[in-house]
Amino acid sequence: MKLLLKNANLLDMVKDFPEIKKRDILIENNRIAEISEEINIDSDKIIDCKNNLVMPGFVNTHNHLAMSVFRGYKDDKSLMDWLNNAIFPVEDKFTEEDFYWNSYESCLELIQTGTTTCNDMYFGMKNIVKAIEDSGIRAVVSWCITDSSIGTKPEETLEYSEKFNNDENSRIKVYVSFHAPYTCNPDTIKLTVDLAKKAKTGIHVHLSETLDEENGIKEKYGKTPTEYLRDLGVFEVPVILAHGIHFSKSDIEIIKNINGGISHNPISNCKLASGICDVVGLRENGIKVGIGTDGTGSTSTLDMFEEMKLVAFLQKIKNMNPEAIKAYDILKMATIEGAKVLGLQDEIGTIEVGKKADMIIIDTKGLRFTPMNDIATTLVYSANGSDVLTTIIDGKVLMENRKFLVSDEELVKQHVRENAERLL
Amino acid sequence: MKLLLKNANLLDMVKDFPEIKKRDILIENNRIAEISEEINIDSDKIIDCKNNLVMPGFVNTHNHLAMSVFRGYKDDKSLMDWLNNAIFPVEDKFTEEDFYWNSYESCLELIQTGTTTCNDMYFGMKNIVKAIEDSGIRAVVSWCITDSSIGTKPEETLEYSEKFNNDENSRIKVYVSFHAPYTCNPDTIKLTVDLAKKAKTGIHVHLSETLDEENGIKEKYGKTPTEYLRDLGVFEVPVILAHGIHFSKSDIEIIKNINGGISHNPISNCKLASGICDVVGLRENGIKVGIGTDGTGSTSTLDMFEEMKLVAFLQKIKNMNPEAIKAYDILKMATIEGAKVLGLQDEIGTIEVGKKADMIIIDTKGLRFTPMNDIATTLVYSANGSDVLTTIIDGKVLMENRKFLVSDEELVKQHVRENAERLL
Repeated sequence: MKLLLKNANLLDMVKDFPEIKKRDILIENNRIAEISEEINIDSDKIIDCKNNLVMPGFVNTHNHLAMSVFRGYKDDKSLMDWLNNAIFPVEDKFTEEDFYWNSYESCLELIQTGTTTCNDMYFGMKNIVKAIEDSGIRAVVSWCITDSSIGTKPEETLEYSEKFNNDENSRIKVYVSFHAPYTCNPDTIKLTVDLAKKAKTGIHVHLSETLDEENGIKEKYGKTPTEYLRDLGVFEVPVILAHGIHFSKSDIEIIKNINGGISHNPISNCKLASGICDVVGLRENGIKVGIGTDGTGSTSTLDMFEEMKLVAFLQKIKNMNPEAIKAYDILKMATIEGAKVLGLQDEIGTIEVGKKADMIIIDTKGLRFTPMNDIATTLVYSANGSDVLTTIIDGKVLMENRKFLVSDEELVKQHVRENAERLL
Repeated sequence: MKLLLKNANLLDMVKDFPEIKKRDILIENNRIAEISEEINIDSDKIIDCKNNLVMPGFVNTHNHLAMSVFRGYKDDKSLMDWLNNAIFPVEDKFTEEDFYWNSYESCLELIQTGTTTCNDMYFGMKNIVKAIEDSGIRAVVSWCITDSSIGTKPEETLEYSEKFNNDENSRIKVYVSFHAPYTCNPDTIKLTVDLAKKAKTGIHVHLSETLDEENGIKEKYGKTPTEYLRDLGVFEVPVILAHGIHFSKSDIEIIKNINGGISHNPISNCKLASGICDVVGLRENGIKVGIGTDGTGSTSTLDMFEEMKLVAFLQKIKNMNPEAIKAYDILKMATIEGAKVLGLQDEIGTIEVGKKADMIIIDTKGLRFTPMNDIATTLVYSANGSDVLTTIIDGKVLMENRKFLVSDEELVKQHVRENAERLL
């Protein structure tokens, strides 16, 4: 299967500064085969990019795909009130079908707005994996363990990790996860670490999200949540740490040595008033920081353009310095740096020959792209997810000119509307 | 001229809570003539809203329309560095045509993303007014006076205010403006106040935007910028105060008594690291707060949906309270409260019989509207300007199904691209 992209303005995200090159791109099966000024070859499909921008798809480093049904539901509440009174009671009523359709909708919204890889954490695996497979998105998946739900999951995680993690052409990679320091006792966390080691994979966990978490763990265990996790061996395996807002100076010394990185979720952190992650400080310490949308419940939309804007706004205002972070740094966080957080930097995150073919075509002819004085500032400050025309994942065109080619958007939306009516 | 909207899900913004009603809306010439469950009447044009949302267009309370050419130009810099080294030297080179085409582009971006009224402040008036007239948008306009530019403007302001302010069917209303406390000495400000009184209109001014401004005015005059303006009689006329970030407690006592209000510009304030306006505190004191995008130079896009999101995010994080402000309050700020700031609350800001027909139709069938658990949280947290299908201003359909009917979008963009190439 050969797919040829002609007349691309290519932003490959390889360099340390934004550079646009006029290129044709040849994709063979799921990988990038050639990038040249002109390629003329017999191919199964040609897309004329019409001088629009081609860039790597976004790597969205923290998701709860099955939460799409909660969009805008009981918003404007504090985290614990919202979780205990709005979210948890409904999640308990999810059927197998709900997991599938809700996750499928999230996958479509991600694909539509330019995310090509997501990183899910939720309860259960089978139906979420099926939605990921059917939608065509690339994903890291993990079955979230808490003290109250450690049942039969380990076996399933091992089964799935064996199936997917050893296949270099799989779109799915299996991690393990426990929910958070404040919902998991030492035994649960040790079980998760053992499982990660047995499955030869990493751990995805919420860490240092709220001050309540910091205070609660300190009171219970006499240490910070980061120290609590370190002492239980969590950082002996690769980790994806979601939020990372309230690290102490000594926590930073621990985090500097992890294999993996932080998933910064600015919209969720603002909506729930959790705090502002010190992205600038973390990155100055050499810590990798990717961007995540979190679940639709707390973030309302899975559009990475919205997150990128807020990364900039929050860092500038937190540091009272408009030069605190540059637009191109944020584009890197949303692509290659996010890939590094997930341990996928050799496969995705830039457009280079040999890498998996995950890329998006952005319409740069609209009013908010005119004039285009600077590609990085325009993408981060002006664009939004509606500017994505075409999304290619693993060499497959999943959306072209804003129409889904593989999935039935109307059917998926109908199911989620029905779920909302029944559940909420 | 009769225009009939059928099958609207109407959010009229009249009540203190969000309420959707199924309605038909009849527009006669430039005003709303009837709102009923069903209207069947001979009309010149019928728009089937197909159960999409109809709401008042946004009132964008602070703009510099002619700055569209600066989109993304030399971003990520501090206010003074950016003004002195990126903006001011180029503004000096603007031709009459530049003012026209740059302003025209801003009008189109505003119309496209749902703004129906803007509030401009810039140098010169003729070509900006012409762009506003040709684009079809509603606007308050003001010729910005500084110490270094007080030449012939007063006469033109008087001429325009006489022409427009006495015509109840005019889309244009003339204010006067001086740039800011830090660029205007007492004589310039007194001249502006006299001019406002002579023209029987109000004043639009930047106030309390940065700490540098606070400190500079205190050093020079021994008082806060707000006290400086009060002592020169500025608050004797209606005022639109842009930014309003660093008010002291005693400033608040002064501001509580103004006729007019604050224009909150969250994106600009974050990008330039000016600070976070205390929207919650101002509103608790009964002060009217509208939302503005500021110019494209500092804000990069004129999409009021982006500003609404950031209003919420900043207030929640500033107060470390997710309940600090509710989505529906933000919708009010972006519509009727903004209209009050501009003194136009009897004409626009809600959809009611007798008011000017300024409204937008929003496509609520996309993924990010599914499911729609709450109309206010969905509009503020999920939607973006690309969801606006149709924009009606003063009874005229300016954009329908995302196509401009009155303006030539491609021609306008071409001129702005040429301006950018020549000027930047």
